[in-house]
Amino acid sequence: MQRIVVLAGGIGGARFLRGLRQAAPDAEITVIGNTGDDIHLFGLKVCPDLDTVMYTLGGGIHEEQGWGRADETFTVKEELAAYGVGPGWFGLGDRDFATHIVRTQMISAGYPLSAVTEALCQRWQPGVRLLPMTDDRVETHVLIDDPDPTGDPDGPGSAGDRAGGDASGRRAVHFQEYWVRLRAAVDAHAVVPIGADQAKPAPGVLEALGAADTVLFPPSNPVVSIGTILAVPGIREAIADAGVPVVGLSPIVGGAPVRGMADKMLAAIGVETTAQAVAAHYGSGLLDGWLVDTADAGAVPEVEAAGIRCRALPLMMSDLDATARMAAEALSLAEEVRA
Amino acid sequence: MQRIVVLAGGIGGARFLRGLRQAAPDAEITVIGNTGDDIHLFGLKVCPDLDTVMYTLGGGIHEEQGWGRADETFTVKEELAAYGVGPGWFGLGDRDFATHIVRTQMISAGYPLSAVTEALCQRWQPGVRLLPMTDDRVETHVLIDDPDPTGDPDGPGSAGDRAGGDASGRRAVHFQEYWVRLRAAVDAHAVVPIGADQAKPAPGVLEALGAADTVLFPPSNPVVSIGTILAVPGIREAIADAGVPVVGLSPIVGGAPVRGMADKMLAAIGVETTAQAVAAHYGSGLLDGWLVDTADAGAVPEVEAAGIRCRALPLMMSDLDATARMAAEALSLAEEVRA
Repeated sequence: MQRIVVLAGGIGGARFLRGLRQAAPDAEITVIGNTGDDIHLFGLKVCPDLDTVMYTLGGGIHEEQGWGRADETFTVKEELAAYGVGPGWFGLGDRDFATHIVRTQMISAGYPLSAVTEALCQRWQPGVRLLPMTDDRVETHVLIDDPDPTGDPDGPGSAGDRAGGDASGRRAVHFQEYWVRLRAAVDAHAVVPIGADQAKPAPGVLEALGAADTVLFPPSNPVVSIGTILAVPGIREAIADAGVPVVGLSPIVGGAPVRGMADKMLAAIGVETTAQAVAAHYGSGLLDGWLVDTADAGAVPEVEAAGIRCRALPLMMSDLDATARMAAEALSLAEEVRA
Repeated sequence: MQRIVVLAGGIGGARFLRGLRQAAPDAEITVIGNTGDDIHLFGLKVCPDLDTVMYTLGGGIHEEQGWGRADETFTVKEELAAYGVGPGWFGLGDRDFATHIVRTQMISAGYPLSAVTEALCQRWQPGVRLLPMTDDRVETHVLIDDPDPTGDPDGPGSAGDRAGGDASGRRAVHFQEYWVRLRAAVDAHAVVPIGADQAKPAPGVLEALGAADTVLFPPSNPVVSIGTILAVPGIREAIADAGVPVVGLSPIVGGAPVRGMADKMLAAIGVETTAQAVAAHYGSGLLDGWLVDTADAGAVPEVEAAGIRCRALPLMMSDLDATARMAAEALSLAEEVRA
């Protein structure tokens, strides 16, 4: 039985995993999920990426939206707003609230996030083993220009209160505030996974990498999703040391992100928004194979010249079959590397 | 301006207060609310009696039910059940959840319950000053026969897990478990407001009693509502020392509770379920006046013989006007005592 380990962010990772499950129904799939986008809201611990993977694979996702629950209602959020309690920009629905309540209750009782995630997955049966990258607290912050160093647009109690400004007229905001409230509409000067350098891989993470036959990077955000996972000391090394094929799929097609605002994040770390630049960013020390979209077929020689096998194929996860073909191609490239 | 202090439990106290507000629109009303029925559910602090008063006076109550919010939905609770997280017997709705989330978040941030209650009332504008009897944790437990000393009908994580059994084959259950899950269908051997003996009156409680012109006991449960408030050291003494009329309304009519299961609670403390027995239980050292229903007019001489002025009038809070008449009569009896 083939053992596949996948590093996953949110929507892109979750949808890819659904395709991978179809492409490799007999494989044992372990997912190392990004927790850098976790946030505490209303006193509850919210893990957007883990939940997107869990809901997507468990059949509870809002399909069109890509995150949150299907048939969602927002009564609790409306009532919180009636108490003047925000932030209002984060879309927590009633069904979703229950997940965060259970998680927070278990964490308060002393369970690590990995055990909590396993418990939540008892309900969702995602068909993969879902591990948080770490049980420690990591929160990705984004450094932006501060248009109003003295004011906070959301008022007391908003996420902005936790943000630190500095003398240069810049301030760090939580990734969710940057991504959801500001919609990445302002430039990011730096992306910092606060706490990552002190974090330890969650139980099972290094073991899964040590036992893996193949490691895959889905078309997730290379900076705030996969980059954050790789920032946990030990994980990058375990992947490099595993001695097995590592194959990634480009989240950049034709010079733009397929979904989301990865270009803003790439710019913050000085990487061009091209399929080949992302491959070079991971580097041949980590990556053995790279899949680019047919629109970027011209980049294949450049990637191969850098020591990374590369193929071009349609990379749009427009439906399950198309996604399964992408996953199958990634596994096929892994076999080519292995041979 | 007349200053009235009211000791209140849940439904009975809340409805009486609505009548009192109409009967004495210019009075300054301070409510000392019972917190002995508070319970932690799903990691959240729930204050059923305080919320019933707040929702009832603020126009948010489910009128027919008497507790909880109007137009309530139960999505969060259903989702928690899907995770196998209970208890399922406590009816927490989505709108109600928001109140508990705000409260729990504020308490986690270090605010005392009295400050939290004031903040919540900013939204509801109940038209009275609502004070919890104490900021300290008090939880009323009920001692019952344990039909199954080894098992817990609700499984792990249920309130039953917190209940302690003893060698006599009895166990203590949280008041809410007794009242809501068991519907007071089994005998109560004792009622213990755990923590009350160590509790201090909340800020403002003793001051309000010291400045009061009149103190009223609504037709609330004499044991688990008013009795619990009186169990907080200092409150009973402050009422007795205030030197102002103290008038109560009987929750027992024709030998049975008007609402709820007060008879079970009275039996547990060895008090008969009659209007005159409840008056005698409070005693002439505390109570100056007592209103009984016309059905209990025959008890008036016995109550008066015990040194408590007594009148009979219809005591059914069937609508706001009827309730206002009861409140007006209580104030009138207070004036008679004062004169």
